[in-house]
Amino acid sequence: CAHSLPSASMHVDPALLDAHILTHTGDAWYGVANGCTRKLGMKICGFLQKNNSLDEKSRMVGAFKESAKNQMCDNSERFMRAETDFSNLFARDLLPAKNGEEPTIQFLLEVVEILTNYVRKTFDRSTKVLDFHHPHQLLEGMEGFNLELSDQPESLEQILVDCRDTLKYGVRTGHPRFFNQLSSGLDIIGLAGEWLTSTANTNMFTYEIAPVFVLMEQLTLKKMREIIGWPNGDGDALFSPGGAISNMYSVMVARYKYFPEVKTKGMSAAPRLVLFTSEHSHYSIKKAGAVLGFGKENVILLKTDERGRVIPADLEAKIIDAKQKGYVPLFVNATAGTTVYGAFDPINDIADICEKYNLWLHVDGAWGGGLLMSRKHRHKLNGIERANSVTWNPHKMMGVPLQCSAILVREKGILQGCNSMCAGYLFQPDKQYDVTYDTGDKAIQCGRHVDIFKFWLMWKAKGTIGFEQHIDRCLELSEYLYNKIKNREGYEMVFEGQPQHTNVCFWYIPPSLRSMPHGDERREKLHRVAPKIKAMMMECGTTMVGYQPQGDKVNFFRMVVSNHAVTKSDIDFLINEIERLGHDL
Amino acid sequence: CAHSLPSASMHVDPALLDAHILTHTGDAWYGVANGCTRKLGMKICGFLQKNNSLDEKSRMVGAFKESAKNQMCDNSERFMRAETDFSNLFARDLLPAKNGEEPTIQFLLEVVEILTNYVRKTFDRSTKVLDFHHPHQLLEGMEGFNLELSDQPESLEQILVDCRDTLKYGVRTGHPRFFNQLSSGLDIIGLAGEWLTSTANTNMFTYEIAPVFVLMEQLTLKKMREIIGWPNGDGDALFSPGGAISNMYSVMVARYKYFPEVKTKGMSAAPRLVLFTSEHSHYSIKKAGAVLGFGKENVILLKTDERGRVIPADLEAKIIDAKQKGYVPLFVNATAGTTVYGAFDPINDIADICEKYNLWLHVDGAWGGGLLMSRKHRHKLNGIERANSVTWNPHKMMGVPLQCSAILVREKGILQGCNSMCAGYLFQPDKQYDVTYDTGDKAIQCGRHVDIFKFWLMWKAKGTIGFEQHIDRCLELSEYLYNKIKNREGYEMVFEGQPQHTNVCFWYIPPSLRSMPHGDERREKLHRVAPKIKAMMMECGTTMVGYQPQGDKVNFFRMVVSNHAVTKSDIDFLINEIERLGHDL
Repeated sequence: CAHSLPSASMHVDPALLDAHILTHTGDAWYGVANGCTRKLGMKICGFLQKNNSLDEKSRMVGAFKESAKNQMCDNSERFMRAETDFSNLFARDLLPAKNGEEPTIQFLLEVVEILTNYVRKTFDRSTKVLDFHHPHQLLEGMEGFNLELSDQPESLEQILVDCRDTLKYGVRTGHPRFFNQLSSGLDIIGLAGEWLTSTANTNMFTYEIAPVFVLMEQLTLKKMREIIGWPNGDGDALFSPGGAISNMYSVMVARYKYFPEVKTKGMSAAPRLVLFTSEHSHYSIKKAGAVLGFGKENVILLKTDERGRVIPADLEAKIIDAKQKGYVPLFVNATAGTTVYGAFDPINDIADICEKYNLWLHVDGAWGGGLLMSRKHRHKLNGIERANSVTWNPHKMMGVPLQCSAILVREKGILQGCNSMCAGYLFQPDKQYDVTYDTGDKAIQCGRHVDIFKFWLMWKAKGTIGFEQHIDRCLELSEYLYNKIKNREGYEMVFEGQPQHTNVCFWYIPPSLRSMPHGDERREKLHRVAPKIKAMMMECGTTMVGYQPQGDKVNFFRMVVSNHAVTKSDIDFLINEIERLGHDL
Repeated sequence: CAHSLPSASMHVDPALLDAHILTHTGDAWYGVANGCTRKLGMKICGFLQKNNSLDEKSRMVGAFKESAKNQMCDNSERFMRAETDFSNLFARDLLPAKNGEEPTIQFLLEVVEILTNYVRKTFDRSTKVLDFHHPHQLLEGMEGFNLELSDQPESLEQILVDCRDTLKYGVRTGHPRFFNQLSSGLDIIGLAGEWLTSTANTNMFTYEIAPVFVLMEQLTLKKMREIIGWPNGDGDALFSPGGAISNMYSVMVARYKYFPEVKTKGMSAAPRLVLFTSEHSHYSIKKAGAVLGFGKENVILLKTDERGRVIPADLEAKIIDAKQKGYVPLFVNATAGTTVYGAFDPINDIADICEKYNLWLHVDGAWGGGLLMSRKHRHKLNGIERANSVTWNPHKMMGVPLQCSAILVREKGILQGCNSMCAGYLFQPDKQYDVTYDTGDKAIQCGRHVDIFKFWLMWKAKGTIGFEQHIDRCLELSEYLYNKIKNREGYEMVFEGQPQHTNVCFWYIPPSLRSMPHGDERREKLHRVAPKIKAMMMECGTTMVGYQPQGDKVNFFRMVVSNHAVTKSDIDFLINEIERLGHDL
C-alpha cells in the first residue's frame, strides 16, 4: 500500500494512474509508481481506500506530486511482467544497449522467478536436499546442461536454463534437513541484503565509493565490541573473507604489537616465536602460522579434556617449556566453540595465564561467538572481554548468508599500524571528507567485498532479541537431539554430558556391531559406518550431516543446528534416516 | 514461452490454467506454472500458439502432466504480485514461518522492484552518480534513515525503506560517468549470477556442497590458463578475495617452491629472501612481503622508464647487488597494467633474467590480464606464458561484478602442497566421490565465497568474443580521450605517447596557472587543482574520476574505462565537467 503512489516523473497516462490507485489489484499489468516519502504514501493510500471521492483523490494526488517536485520523492516505477521470447535475445541486447531497458527488466524478473521458486522449495520438506551426481557425470554434461565455455554467445533462454540447472544440481544449504556445515539456513532478509549488495557492486576500501556501507560496518562492529564487553565498544575491527583470515589477522596483529619491526625487516628481526592453540582448535591457526612465516611446528597444540576444552595447566606447562628452550611465547588462541565438539575453552583461566606471561589472547569465536547474543548462553564465553582480539562469524551461528566474518581487536589503531601501506592512488590525504573513514589500509586486501549490509539489515529486521531467540532455539533443538539419543539403543556419545554448543557427536552402531567385543575389528568396522551412511544419504538426497574422525576416535557423526528452519521433526527425521540407511550395515 | 506450462502440483483452478496458456498476456495476475523439461515446454507452447484447438490443447496438457508425474518436471510456479501491507509484517513472518511463503515472495519481489529501479536509473544519464553526504551527516541520520541497530525488530516496511535509502546515499558504480575505479560497470548477466550465488548460499571448500560451482571453477580456470598459454591449460588455480590476496598467494607459492621447509619451520629456516617489483606496481606486493614475514624492506623496488615500465637492466643490477650482500633473490613481480599509468612491464625481458638467476616470475595482471582476451591487444602481455604464476582479476577489465580474482599457477599441485593442513572434518578421504575435487585445502581460507558463477555465466552469455569486443571498445574510448586532450589547451599529459591500457593520466591547468612559470609555486597550486575539482564533482554528483600524485609528480587525474556503458559522449562530458568546475580555480 505504501508503494502504490505515482511519481511526478512517470510517463504513464494519468487516467491509468488514477484508475490504478482505486483499483489496486485489478488489471495492474500497467506500471505503477513506487512510493514517495513513506508517510505521505500511507496517508493517501489509506485515505483513498476509505473514501472513494474523486475530489479527495485528486487533491491528494496533487499534494503528492508537489512533494515529488520538492525532491522528496524517489521517482521509480513498478515493474511490469511481459511475455518475452528470450531465445532471440542475447547479453548484448540488455542495458546499456539501446532499448535495452525492457529486456533487462524482463530477464531479471525471469531470473527472480527461478530464484523465488528455489527459495520456496528450499523450505519444502518434500524437496530433496540435493540431487547427487559424481564429478564425471556433471562434466560429461547432463541433459541440456553443458559446463563448457565457448567463443560464441548463448541466448538468454539458454542462460536461464543454465541458471535453473545450476540450482538443480547444487545443494540446498537452506533446507531444514541440511546439517552438514556450521553455516546453514537461508535467511530471507539476509538474502535480500545480498541481492542489494550485488546490485550496488561496490568496494569497502574508501568512504568515497561506499559511504553507507562503511558507516554501517563501523556501527555494527562497535556494537559487536560492546557485546564482547570492551569498554564503550572501543577498539578496532574489520569484516574479512572468513574465519581463517580473521584468525590470521589476530596472529599478525599480535606479532605487530610485540615485534613491530617484523613489518619492515621480516621474521628475522624477531626471536623464535611460538603460538599456542588446542588440538581441537580450527586448522586455520596452524595455517596462519605457516602463512605468516612462523612455521607450523611453532604452533604448539594444547591438550584438552575429554570434552575438547583446553587444559589450562597444559598451556602453562608448555609456555614454561618453550621459554626454557629459548623460544618466545607470543600468542594464545582460546576457542569459543570448537568445530567438532563445540567446546568452549575456559577463557578466564587462559586469560590469567596470558596476563602472567604477557601474551596476546585471541578468542576464536567463529562458531561460538553468536552465543554472546543470548543471555542464557553467553556465560560460556565468560572472560572474552579480556581478549586482545576476537574472531566472530555471523555467517555461522547467527544465520547470516556467506560470508560475514569479523576480526575484532581491543586496541584501537593497531590494524592500521600493522597493515597500512598508504597507497596514494586510493587514500589521498587531501580529500574533502574526513579520511579516517577510508578503512582500506587496515586490511590485507585492497578491494574488499561488502559483507556488512546483509548483516546490518538482518539486525534491523530481527533486532538483537531476534538473534537471541534464534540462538536459544538452536540450542534447545540440539538438547532435544542429545536427550533423544543419549540412551537410545544403537547410539554411543563421543563425549559424556550435555554439549555446550549445538554440536552433538555420536556413533550409530548398526545391529551387526552391537554385540561385537570392543577391539580393532569393531573399530575398523565402525570407522566405515558413518561414511557409508553419509554416501547413501547423499545419493538419496534426503538429508546431510557431517562426520569425521578425531584423534584416536573413529569416524563419528557431528550434528549441528544453525538453521532457523529446523524443527524437532527434522531431528527425528535425521535419526530415522540414519537408522533406515545404517540398519543392515 | 518455455515457461508458460502448468505443473501437475499447482493448486490453481484448471480452467484458469488452460485459459492462461491461450491468453498468455491477458489477466496474468494469476499464477502460472514454470516450465517442465524445456523441449516439451516449447513444443506445447508453440503448438498451442499455432493451433487453438481445444482437443489438441487438452491432449498436450495431459502429456505434460504425465511427464510431471514421472519426475521429469521442475514443478515451480510463476510468482504473483499481490498488494501487501508490510507495515504489519516482520522478519519472523517470512519463511520458514508457517504461512510464510506468500509474504516471503511478496517481500522479495518488492526488493527486486527497488533493485530493478536502481539498475534502470544507473544507466540513465539524467541520474546523478552520487548524492554526496559527509560521514557526520549520514551518522546523524537522514530523514527516515537511521543506521543505528536496536533490540527490537523493525517492520518489513521499514526494511524496504532502508534498502531504498542505502542505494540512494550510495554511489552508482555502474553509471556511465563513474570512472573512479578500475572496477566499474554493472553487467546484467553478472548481476543475475550474483543474485543466484547469494540464493545458493554455499561454500567452495568441498565438492560435496558446491558440486556445480567447483566444476565451473575448474573449467573456467583451465580456460584462463590456456589463454595465458600454458600447455594444455595445465597447472593450478583458485579464485581468491581480490588481487592483493592473489598476489600474496604468488609470493607464498614461490617461497614454498624454493624453501618448502618454511611451511613447517618458519622464515628462520630460509636465508634472507628478497622480492623485486617496480616502483609503479601495486602496493599489495609490499603488503605481501610484510604479511608473510619477509619484511617490506626486503621488497626491492625497481626503476621504471617514464611510461612506468620496469627497466630490466635495473632488475638485473639489483639482483646482483642483493646477492653480493648475501641476500637470496626469490621472486620477481612483473606488472601487466599498472594501477596508475596502465603500463605493461616487458615480460619477456624480465623472464630472461628470471631464468638466468632461477627466480620465480609472477605477472600481476589484475588490471591488464583482461587484454589477453583481445587479439589486438594481447601482445602487450607477450611472455606471460613464461610466468610461474599470474594474477588476473575478471572483476576489473572484464566487467565481472566484485569480486572475482584468480591466482593461476603453472605448476600443478603446488597450491595444495603449500597450503594443505588436511583438516579431517572437511576433507575426509573416505567420501564416495573423487575427493580431488575438494579444493578447500589449497586455499589460505577455509570457507571460500562462490566467485565463479557470475563469471562463468557472463562467459556463456557473451562468449569469448564478447569479452574481446568489450576490451577493444574500452581501449578505443581511451584512445579517443587521449587524442582529444593531448593537444588541447589547458591539458598536460603525465607521460608522452599513447597509453598502453585505458589509463589516461593528465593535469588540467586552470587558466590562472597557464602562464605561470614552472616552479614550486605553480607545483603547489597545481597539486591542489585535482582534489578541488574532484570535491566539486562529488558534491555535484555528476561524475567521478580518480586522482593521485606519483613519485615527484603532483596530483593528476587518472582516467580509466572499464564500464561497457561508457560512450564518447561520456568522455566529452567528463572533459566539459573538469573545465566547468576548474575554470576559475
